[in-house]
Amino acid sequence: MSHFLPVKLEHASRLINHGPTVLVTSAHGACRNVMAAAWSMPVEFTPPRIAVVIDKRTYTRELAAASGTFGICVPGAAMMDLTYAVGSSSGRDLDKFEAFGIEAVAGPVLGLPLIEKNCAAWLECRLIDEKHTEDAYDTCFAEVVAAAADPRVFSAGHWTLDDSNQPLHTIHHLGAGNFVRASAMEQARPLDAL
Amino acid sequence: MSHFLPVKLEHASRLINHGPTVLVTSAHGACRNVMAAAWSMPVEFTPPRIAVVIDKRTYTRELAAASGTFGICVPGAAMMDLTYAVGSSSGRDLDKFEAFGIEAVAGPVLGLPLIEKNCAAWLECRLIDEKHTEDAYDTCFAEVVAAAADPRVFSAGHWTLDDSNQPLHTIHHLGAGNFVRASAMEQARPLDAL
Repeated sequence: MSHFLPVKLEHASRLINHGPTVLVTSAHGACRNVMAAAWSMPVEFTPPRIAVVIDKRTYTRELAAASGTFGICVPGAAMMDLTYAVGSSSGRDLDKFEAFGIEAVAGPVLGLPLIEKNCAAWLECRLIDEKHTEDAYDTCFAEVVAAAADPRVFSAGHWTLDDSNQPLHTIHHLGAGNFVRASAMEQARPLDAL
Repeated sequence: MSHFLPVKLEHASRLINHGPTVLVTSAHGACRNVMAAAWSMPVEFTPPRIAVVIDKRTYTRELAAASGTFGICVPGAAMMDLTYAVGSSSGRDLDKFEAFGIEAVAGPVLGLPLIEKNCAAWLECRLIDEKHTEDAYDTCFAEVVAAAADPRVFSAGHWTLDDSNQPLHTIHHLGAGNFVRASAMEQARPLDAL
């Protein structure tokens, strides 16, 4: 039984608004894969659209192109080592879900393998046909068709990241396996012009 | 006298690898502007290329299109209120540098207005002509032609974010003026497949 709750599509972009490192999941026929991606961003709120850089040499890109879909999972701090591990091995050599003992749930709209344990949220995405940017910049545009989150960190369209839920704080890759966590949530104070 | 040090172009992507909210600066003729942008990402290491979402209705987009250039500054936590302020007002109505007392330095290659006080880093960027993605997704691709950083947080190609330099920790916008800080830097441990 999933502990995740659906996220309204108009709030889906907020799940990656702050630049977390994500896991990209994919499946085609009997094959499936998961990789890490530091480079993603929303590009539109409504309809919810995102862009993510997926190297054309990866198995993920091959599966995503074949199925026209991919999943985005937002790992929490408890999943840092695993995030780095799936970012450092190829799904052509092994089923990373099996190899690293990662439990997958099936997405409600596209049936993609998604990860909930130690993740803060996931999004199911349908690729938008943008061959030029895929070729030139490995940048894949996609529309979000379903999203859900762990209500301990994201509910009613808002993140709550505090001391009570540190294992689910998003992680942000600096490079070479070094991550920072999103912490110390704070509200900006309004400033008047001089 | 600048306290920033040059960042090698092959390391420039690392300045925004972890998804910080950035300031986009722009200038054309006697006009200049600065806005906040939560949606940016690197798309390539070498040559260093990035993508940033800049709404087509903004003054920044107008100036960037006219000059073919823009700057990216990475604000530190000490600049959170100011980041939100320049993201909540339009440069068509006021010179935000003057209005909010923001000191600008001139970029070495493109002469763009850049911000160093309370910022961790900056990048000077030349727009790549990608009319379709600019029109369809407000997504602007650009090549980085110069970069520099405050050596207290970024030197020799690497971030150091610890208790000694909290005012320069990058900030990441969750939405509606709520930010988290990049903190608790940690190295992932290698995992073996089962």
